[in-house]
Amino acid sequence: MGSNKISTSVIKRLPRYYRFLGDLKSAGITRISSQELSKRMGLTASQIRQDLNCFGGFGQQGYGYNIELLQSEIAKILGIDRVKTTILIGMGNLGRAVTMHINFEQKGFRLTGLFDAKESLIGQVIKNLPIRSTSDLDEFCRENRPEVAVLCIPKEAAAEISEQLIKLGIKGFLNFSHYDIGMNHPEVKVENVHLTDSLMTLSYALSND
Amino acid sequence: MGSNKISTSVIKRLPRYYRFLGDLKSAGITRISSQELSKRMGLTASQIRQDLNCFGGFGQQGYGYNIELLQSEIAKILGIDRVKTTILIGMGNLGRAVTMHINFEQKGFRLTGLFDAKESLIGQVIKNLPIRSTSDLDEFCRENRPEVAVLCIPKEAAAEISEQLIKLGIKGFLNFSHYDIGMNHPEVKVENVHLTDSLMTLSYALSND
Repeated sequence: MGSNKISTSVIKRLPRYYRFLGDLKSAGITRISSQELSKRMGLTASQIRQDLNCFGGFGQQGYGYNIELLQSEIAKILGIDRVKTTILIGMGNLGRAVTMHINFEQKGFRLTGLFDAKESLIGQVIKNLPIRSTSDLDEFCRENRPEVAVLCIPKEAAAEISEQLIKLGIKGFLNFSHYDIGMNHPEVKVENVHLTDSLMTLSYALSND
Repeated sequence: MGSNKISTSVIKRLPRYYRFLGDLKSAGITRISSQELSKRMGLTASQIRQDLNCFGGFGQQGYGYNIELLQSEIAKILGIDRVKTTILIGMGNLGRAVTMHINFEQKGFRLTGLFDAKESLIGQVIKNLPIRSTSDLDEFCRENRPEVAVLCIPKEAAAEISEQLIKLGIKGFLNFSHYDIGMNHPEVKVENVHLTDSLMTLSYALSND
């Protein structure tokens, strides 16, 4: 199967394939042609055939794709089936919403610790986890060896905490802070959610029609 | 200046330039060389010179870039200086956090209405705006002509509401729902924030090192 052969542009589309196949599965559909899938996803049928051929090609001429098989194969490639121990730093409005709203477990991210610097938040319980003090980060990480950190902290705090977390063994960040993590750590994986960048991109699209 | 000549890849970098230049301005720096800017942003100096040449090139040999001038020019290209009347639909955990956390005004988005379908939320006030019932959307949009809608609603509700909003004149969406808006409306601008897609992308990066 050799996932190392898959191109970046295909990889970028994988989460969307996963999502669409999940919707079809929920709707009780068991197989689908590349034509039908292309119509629903707004891609060309040949694009879809090319993409899905990259990881084995689960289509059969005249039968279409087996949705369950295809989705579970994409899940494997995405590493969703692997448990990634995860902590979240910053329990303000955004951090709370992210904790409540995102279904981490469903994508293999096991949330084990919530942290904030603010004294008044320490001890509050959200999703069955107590908010801990960021001063306990070192001890917690040495004991629990989290692999991923979700950062919902202001830009000003992000530089220092991300360096600390990388030293403590964090390998990946879901980064909501407006700080570009790990420019000096190419080995660390970072997925940025820069919400105001999204606003600016939308502004551009609306203003340059 | 002709912003229609700017390539997509340059446009994608504009919000980040805008952000970095803002940081420099806040730090009291007035000019910067392409070498120094490249080091801070993790791009090559020639890449930066090429990018910034696309919209006039504010650099002078031996002087560097005038930060304030450059940022305000990028703001104009991004349309940040233009007011875009905006509404937000879905005032659950995520919608509240987005309302509180994102500085819409700073990017030209004037938030004028908050909406939810849930009876118990109607009338609550957040950021000086009362939460209104989605059953009042038609009337509100006809009176206030919002241009942008921020969607923080579940996937199941997104198809219907986005169609309704497009009919009511909405031209752009910041879309947090896991639904692909407007595939049948290429004229509508959509910026997606698919948080679980980001999780899956991070999962892939961690699992295929």
